[in-house]
Amino acid sequence: MEQRTELSTLGEFGLIKLINEKFPINNPETLKGIGDDAAVIDSAGKELVVSTDLLIEGIHFDLSYCPIKLLGYKSVAVNVSDIAAMNAIPKQITVSLGLSNRISVEAVEELYEGIKAACDEYKVDLVGGDTSASRSGLVISITALGFAEKEKIVYRNTAKVNDIVCVSGDFGAALMGLQTLEREKQVFLANPDMQPQIDKDRDYVIERQLKPQARMDVVYELRDLGVVPTSMIDVSDGLAAELLHICKNSGVGAVIFEDKIPIEDQTYLTATELNFSPMTAALNGGEDYELLFTVKQEDYEKIKNMNDVSIIGYITNDVTDAKMMMKSGNLVNITAPGYEHF
Amino acid sequence: MEQRTELSTLGEFGLIKLINEKFPINNPETLKGIGDDAAVIDSAGKELVVSTDLLIEGIHFDLSYCPIKLLGYKSVAVNVSDIAAMNAIPKQITVSLGLSNRISVEAVEELYEGIKAACDEYKVDLVGGDTSASRSGLVISITALGFAEKEKIVYRNTAKVNDIVCVSGDFGAALMGLQTLEREKQVFLANPDMQPQIDKDRDYVIERQLKPQARMDVVYELRDLGVVPTSMIDVSDGLAAELLHICKNSGVGAVIFEDKIPIEDQTYLTATELNFSPMTAALNGGEDYELLFTVKQEDYEKIKNMNDVSIIGYITNDVTDAKMMMKSGNLVNITAPGYEHF
Repeated sequence: MEQRTELSTLGEFGLIKLINEKFPINNPETLKGIGDDAAVIDSAGKELVVSTDLLIEGIHFDLSYCPIKLLGYKSVAVNVSDIAAMNAIPKQITVSLGLSNRISVEAVEELYEGIKAACDEYKVDLVGGDTSASRSGLVISITALGFAEKEKIVYRNTAKVNDIVCVSGDFGAALMGLQTLEREKQVFLANPDMQPQIDKDRDYVIERQLKPQARMDVVYELRDLGVVPTSMIDVSDGLAAELLHICKNSGVGAVIFEDKIPIEDQTYLTATELNFSPMTAALNGGEDYELLFTVKQEDYEKIKNMNDVSIIGYITNDVTDAKMMMKSGNLVNITAPGYEHF
Repeated sequence: MEQRTELSTLGEFGLIKLINEKFPINNPETLKGIGDDAAVIDSAGKELVVSTDLLIEGIHFDLSYCPIKLLGYKSVAVNVSDIAAMNAIPKQITVSLGLSNRISVEAVEELYEGIKAACDEYKVDLVGGDTSASRSGLVISITALGFAEKEKIVYRNTAKVNDIVCVSGDFGAALMGLQTLEREKQVFLANPDMQPQIDKDRDYVIERQLKPQARMDVVYELRDLGVVPTSMIDVSDGLAAELLHICKNSGVGAVIFEDKIPIEDQTYLTATELNFSPMTAALNGGEDYELLFTVKQEDYEKIKNMNDVSIIGYITNDVTDAKMMMKSGNLVNITAPGYEHF
């Protein structure tokens, strides 16, 4: 039987000790991490970039199919993704947890294992947080701090007419992963004796849902190439919605090409099996955490061979209107269903 | 009848718009507030200080006697208090909310009214956050950012032998306020027809519980006097616990004097009526949010006339042991019951 230690045996100070031991400070800018009223950070002459997310059990995640370790990883990755979307380098995070007594010490350790794995991956220091009881489900609040020179910070409201529209990675996979997991959960709920069976040929879409990556590799490659995008946003609410954000905020329009939208084969296959339109999944599925950015035409030569980056269209002066050129030659308006959490 | 608008009628974007309108940016260092993937802040060559708190309904607050506007105020004040305890100046906060559908648009507006009042009081900009649904109670996560020159930042582990121990304000009032409110709630629960009656002569202790103040005035006065404390901490878990933190972290001891511990008359009276020891309330009651700090002996002349600051003892070489000199002349050990939230 799996070991289960009640949180009460560890206590708040025991938990802080556990975290302290697991998370040594690595960045020289982190002058003080956990252990005082606040963390102290040397900004080294750069601008500070701050992003925060609140994740609540039953709303943002379902522990019945999301391994708690991956949840820890994902919580950090999605915040780092926001820092990446500003073209900044993440350096520190704070993690606050509300823990219900359903959660054992072992589960909390697993959660921090995942957080630690993401901290290592993205080279960020955990510098603070708050842990407390929660009467209901698990609550995770993460704030990420990043830094960049002022002239390297990229906003979403600065795309210009004729800029090239680029994306990293591919789209729709995270939604197809979620649909697959939800379906398995329904099978399991209907017949608890039947263990969820996840086909090997769904591994990619499921990993994209459970363990998304912040595209820091793209941020670093852009630096190496000497390219500062004219605008950038991370794709958390679907490619269509984020493109519309850039257009609306920048006062421009865009045309993207249907046949340029990157969609993985497994996303196609899963969508087809689940009676989803792959293109709808790509445009409106959330949680891809890829980067959508625009660059000047004169930077085309520099970016055309970037790793895992696709050119999907261009910016127009057709104010705040985004269109997709279909394979058929028709131009259709891009819309995004309001992504409402209430 | 009071107006009640369901949150769903406002939506996430409506809520963001509401916040945006209510919270203009005031600090020139805040380059970008709400509206992009992350906020952008100019650290102006100073060190960054970061503190975060997670407040969960049913654990940290009880909406049955805590007006939601004051809850908003308090949530900000307690984070600013952590920044004050580092001898830094608060500049920005992020506020994330998990909202159950029990909460109306009007209640959310009240909450933000209180947050706004505290932002105005402490001159901080609200620069970001996250709002989402919550299956259970209200969840508030606040991160505060402050700045200070490196040489002005004060830690809790740097008290030195012979330093003078000082406190701002008075102690035990917040606990007595909580006890009063809890008692009124029990009366109300026993007989819902009986409206809670809060005596005028409990106004101070109740205000100390519901609307604590971060002692930025002390931080500013210390700057005016040219004094940098040798150590500092804010008193959230009781004076005894925080003094022990300073001793343990600094590897020193302390002696404080019973007759120097500041306790308000109303705290005394309330404690007596509720069969509490006023001194126990002062030493072990939480949520006073006063500052406990140490200064060098040579700074005595500078600090002796500070507004609302008391000298209560001195630091000894009696490693990690804190004692209180009683009026009787006896020296007793100071202890603090573990403040466990699990």
